[in-house]
Amino acid sequence: MSNKFGDIFSFTSFGESHGVAVGGVIDGMPAGVKIDEAFIQSELDRRRPGQSHLTTSRKESDKVEILSGVFEGKTTGTPIGFIVRNEDHHSADYSNIKEVFRPSHADYTYQMKYGIRDYRGGGRSSARENISRVVAGAFAKTYLNMLGIKITAYTSQVGDIEVSRDYKSLDFNEIEKNPVRCADANVAKQMEQLITEVKSDGDTIGGVVTCVIQNVPVGLGEPIYDKLHAALGSAMLSINAVKGFEYGLGFEAAKHRGTEINDIFYQENGVVKTKTNNSGGIQGGISNGQDIVFRVAFKPVPTILKTQETIDTNLKSATIMPKGRHDACVLPRAVPVVEAMSAVVMLDMYLKNKAR
Amino acid sequence: MSNKFGDIFSFTSFGESHGVAVGGVIDGMPAGVKIDEAFIQSELDRRRPGQSHLTTSRKESDKVEILSGVFEGKTTGTPIGFIVRNEDHHSADYSNIKEVFRPSHADYTYQMKYGIRDYRGGGRSSARENISRVVAGAFAKTYLNMLGIKITAYTSQVGDIEVSRDYKSLDFNEIEKNPVRCADANVAKQMEQLITEVKSDGDTIGGVVTCVIQNVPVGLGEPIYDKLHAALGSAMLSINAVKGFEYGLGFEAAKHRGTEINDIFYQENGVVKTKTNNSGGIQGGISNGQDIVFRVAFKPVPTILKTQETIDTNLKSATIMPKGRHDACVLPRAVPVVEAMSAVVMLDMYLKNKAR
Amino acid sequence: MSNKFGDIFSFTSFGESHGVAVGGVIDGMPAGVKIDEAFIQSELDRRRPGQSHLTTSRKESDKVEILSGVFEGKTTGTPIGFIVRNEDHHSADYSNIKEVFRPSHADYTYQMKYGIRDYRGGGRSSARENISRVVAGAFAKTYLNMLGIKITAYTSQVGDIEVSRDYKSLDFNEIEKNPVRCADANVAKQMEQLITEVKSDGDTIGGVVTCVIQNVPVGLGEPIYDKLHAALGSAMLSINAVKGFEYGLGFEAAKHRGTEINDIFYQENGVVKTKTNNSGGIQGGISNGQDIVFRVAFKPVPTILKTQETIDTNLKSATIMPKGRHDACVLPRAVPVVEAMSAVVMLDMYLKNKAR
Amino acid sequence: MSNKFGDIFSFTSFGESHGVAVGGVIDGMPAGVKIDEAFIQSELDRRRPGQSHLTTSRKESDKVEILSGVFEGKTTGTPIGFIVRNEDHHSADYSNIKEVFRPSHADYTYQMKYGIRDYRGGGRSSARENISRVVAGAFAKTYLNMLGIKITAYTSQVGDIEVSRDYKSLDFNEIEKNPVRCADANVAKQMEQLITEVKSDGDTIGGVVTCVIQNVPVGLGEPIYDKLHAALGSAMLSINAVKGFEYGLGFEAAKHRGTEINDIFYQENGVVKTKTNNSGGIQGGISNGQDIVFRVAFKPVPTILKTQETIDTNLKSATIMPKGRHDACVLPRAVPVVEAMSAVVMLDMYLKNKAR
Repeated sequence: MSNKFGDIFSFTSFGESHGVAVGGVIDGMPAGVKIDEAFIQSELDRRRPGQSHLTTSRKESDKVEILSGVFEGKTTGTPIGFIVRNEDHHSADYSNIKEVFRPSHADYTYQMKYGIRDYRGGGRSSARENISRVVAGAFAKTYLNMLGIKITAYTSQVGDIEVSRDYKSLDFNEIEKNPVRCADANVAKQMEQLITEVKSDGDTIGGVVTCVIQNVPVGLGEPIYDKLHAALGSAMLSINAVKGFEYGLGFEAAKHRGTEINDIFYQENGVVKTKTNNSGGIQGGISNGQDIVFRVAFKPVPTILKTQETIDTNLKSATIMPKGRHDACVLPRAVPVVEAMSAVVMLDMYLKNKAR
Repeated sequence: MSNKFGDIFSFTSFGESHGVAVGGVIDGMPAGVKIDEAFIQSELDRRRPGQSHLTTSRKESDKVEILSGVFEGKTTGTPIGFIVRNEDHHSADYSNIKEVFRPSHADYTYQMKYGIRDYRGGGRSSARENISRVVAGAFAKTYLNMLGIKITAYTSQVGDIEVSRDYKSLDFNEIEKNPVRCADANVAKQMEQLITEVKSDGDTIGGVVTCVIQNVPVGLGEPIYDKLHAALGSAMLSINAVKGFEYGLGFEAAKHRGTEINDIFYQENGVVKTKTNNSGGIQGGISNGQDIVFRVAFKPVPTILKTQETIDTNLKSATIMPKGRHDACVLPRAVPVVEAMSAVVMLDMYLKNKAR
Repeated sequence: MSNKFGDIFSFTSFGESHGVAVGGVIDGMPAGVKIDEAFIQSELDRRRPGQSHLTTSRKESDKVEILSGVFEGKTTGTPIGFIVRNEDHHSADYSNIKEVFRPSHADYTYQMKYGIRDYRGGGRSSARENISRVVAGAFAKTYLNMLGIKITAYTSQVGDIEVSRDYKSLDFNEIEKNPVRCADANVAKQMEQLITEVKSDGDTIGGVVTCVIQNVPVGLGEPIYDKLHAALGSAMLSINAVKGFEYGLGFEAAKHRGTEINDIFYQENGVVKTKTNNSGGIQGGISNGQDIVFRVAFKPVPTILKTQETIDTNLKSATIMPKGRHDACVLPRAVPVVEAMSAVVMLDMYLKNKAR
Repeated sequence: MSNKFGDIFSFTSFGESHGVAVGGVIDGMPAGVKIDEAFIQSELDRRRPGQSHLTTSRKESDKVEILSGVFEGKTTGTPIGFIVRNEDHHSADYSNIKEVFRPSHADYTYQMKYGIRDYRGGGRSSARENISRVVAGAFAKTYLNMLGIKITAYTSQVGDIEVSRDYKSLDFNEIEKNPVRCADANVAKQMEQLITEVKSDGDTIGGVVTCVIQNVPVGLGEPIYDKLHAALGSAMLSINAVKGFEYGLGFEAAKHRGTEINDIFYQENGVVKTKTNNSGGIQGGISNGQDIVFRVAFKPVPTILKTQETIDTNLKSATIMPKGRHDACVLPRAVPVVEAMSAVVMLDMYLKNKAR
């Protein structure tokens, strides 16, 4: 079941970086929902390579073709098949990694697990697989919009440059205005400069995406083993290059006492709220109506434009110097992926809750 | 599917804190495996309340009764039913929370989601549910032992007291020798003192568990959406009070450049190794043969022996002062739970890999 | 996942015929439903051995103990654990089959698949496993009753004695009045006589159960691969001794032309009906509001009180003459099992449909 | 999960009759298997419309495009995406059913369930969905061939014309030599004549497909709720127009006594066999090494070229006279579908068994 994500609302994806196409099947999309194909495409465009000077120069138009499940502009409740054809293959760039394992990539583990791998551009382990996530997420967002649920992710850290302000004081409209997708214009500039510098070094840099989900109804999340934050965490950890997930106060909570961080309930005009939101909007695995807030750590892309020592497929010493086109920092393009996976989880949980 | 965990090797659990019993069904345990019931019980004893002066004084013998699936000392491949009866109910202690929502607990969200809750001791949201995890984990460990896979967790942080040494320089035999389950005897003493102090304040404190999985074969983990670390992360995040998960370099990786943290492959006597293990033993979602290392952040238990403001079930202002018996720090008793869930994930992944 | 049945409403069962207990965990039962434990027990009593002169003389009180998920008489939305302890073991009766494979039983296949088997009374392959189905079914029926959905099964054939009348002309109140659970009193007498005769021969006899589900809302069933009749068929075929399943006109449809058997729609007081119901209440895998009707074929129990040739566990020729206590005809006790599994499927489908 | 079939080896399908394309994603195909695309296409050609004078005249080349998961002629263990574009739409033929429900079709139930339907050619409920089954089945067959497992289906009944001979006396090479796909040349001629006659009447006719699976290893099938015959039954019942499933002696077993039909074990050259095979190769839900034999009943296609009474989408009386092109008898084209679904089940069960 490794290539399917979600239970009631789900998608199953396929596709290698340099194969014919990537795509998938979305199952469980409710019927009768008006679909705006331009919106679906615009979400893909946010993830598309070559969108700014910070990202890889691979040229892909990433045009999605919807093959089923939408009739006269509305979903029919039947599965939605979709494909995005791969265009700018440049597979020759990868002939040098046919017999060499790139450090901190998935080449070695795929080869050992399957005994075979499509080495071109990482094959299935390429971040190009994110396309399927973004398309599924765009459908999920369409439904969540109808419910008023709003998902916003932004780059909150690149290297050691961090957004120090709380998300509530940020202007989310800023996010799409800078190539880093940072919600703070000033910090964005510093981040942009750092990435440019790192790129010119032939190096890469990690970072953190923060995600906020607003207007969530109380009651989403399925205890015990399908807690809302466990599902969100699993979704985030399944994204390439992710190394950590925390929600609410996260790792910081480990340092504190109960008296310091308990979220005190109060009522305002019939609405239950908490004075603080250290729980990150989730208690006992179930949404409590406060904003859901979590952070996702990304490592630097392992492809660096430098010669590295490694081994080849015969386990002999070798060196590698990549020719492929890569991002110096995945964060800007990771933002829409984080949002997409969040949307898939939230819609799945919403539908699960309806089934009770 | 919320009360089932795992795919091929799985368990489904049931039980409330003050109901008749907790228990579950383990499905997919391979046949012909010799079972040592004393070992199963000893794992439960590590989680049992009242085992030291640091933990809750609730008195439970937590004796497990195995009802099926083991015949003449060996597993038969059929499901293993088990129960642990609840003994020391003291339900009266909880009558005061019947109509009041405890801050940062699951009372409010369960009530809103289900319209009803067994308020006694948290009901289903009680950490007593961990018993089922530990029993399932003990069966999984029995099989993993046969494969040589070794899982070791320990308390690595309580409040701001941390084990600063790398796990490789620690003596894991130390862990069960101190009540904190810390792998460093000196740090353990400081932690013990801190917890004692916090307890006497009627307060609680958070912390971190580090888990190391050794002798893992290359190839475990099912990309794309069932990556090994996503499965481990989901397992950990499903444990009560967990706020964050990171593996390998984790959140620290966000600060680094690719040149600094790529793990360089080399070969030694035919065995492929990496010079560093910033990947935490997992690349592309698949184990690479190096030690798997991850960290799990726990918040302080929200039950504090102090009067707190809150609301009641009519959403009116109220105050609460708990009478229940609770842990000032869950870390010591969380260690076996982290190990158990790791074991369940690892056996499930091992069996999935066999199916290919 | 072999010991779990159902998706949103599901149960996972455990237990061997001569082990400590049989039982299971019901997951996904909606919260707030009033539970009548006497009703649950009465359903079990319909399946209990020794209830009439036609059934096995094994003495089991089959008292169910509910361990969780019900609080103050109502479901809480948490999993319902339950056990029924085995009492009248007589395991010594089975020592002679320890090393011999009974013809047309599961002894040989279990031994070959698992390399080990609990040979006492068939172990896990015993029909005693039906207890878990009946308990889960009783919970499902409780919910379906609230919706007005009514499930009625009856013995419609034993050997070559058949109920020839259409179910609409039968009085379902008759079913529980005779030990065969046949809806036609006259035919019941003939069946009873036949079973008595077969029993005195030390032989066994097969038959058919017909099941009718009434007041089903339009729209239940999840195409394509989870069609309502596919789910019902799978449920029935999972019951011990079942050899066939058909719905609506069933195998008879193979002989007909479209003009003869198409169900013509018409409308009556705003309600859509069909003039005939050859579709058995299901079209395109989805309920159409007409009665759901299906038939389930049971083979004769393979345990006959006669010496049979066979092989032993060393694959040498052997003979076998059982000492165990068995039913000459499973049909009377299969009726509540067919109803139970139907109820589980219908509730699962109802909840799935709600999730859309 | 309604559009996914299978667990470890699975496929998820999409596509409507008159949409852009049908297709799917195959997940869990083992790596390193040599793929013959000509074989995949030849399986599709067996299902293709217009292949003989007996089938619908819809013109579709049904060329499959494999988009991923196969690299340099071998599977890589990653998911296999595929599509078949729809060509001969003739959607105008269906404008008359936009607002009228065809009797015994899925128009009414889809409309009521989803509130919307792609009415063109039955949309998702069209038998064109079988294409995805056949492609997945062709991959499964490729693997099963390597194991020596052979699956053969044939038309054994059309209307009241039946193949009376046991399958063992039939020449399976005959099947593809006649347009009915009957294993008995003489009976095939009678069937062909009957179908021709029925077609010229503008009518349709039902029938039965028999399927035989040979060289099956002992031990496939997962008790209790995933018994081999329950999985096969569910697979068959999910195929359009199927009304019944039986294996081994099937419904006939209901008429017999245990003494008459028990399958007696014996050993021959170290191989365990049974003197008869009334069990149809499955005991206790697990293959016993004998041939697996089952029968699948198909109703006549409900589309008849005659005026029928019905209701329209406003529930008013209406009449309908279809213009679409349809088969007078689905049996010839159902044969490869039955084989394909059998192959998917058998490979899934084989891989599940490996995981133990």
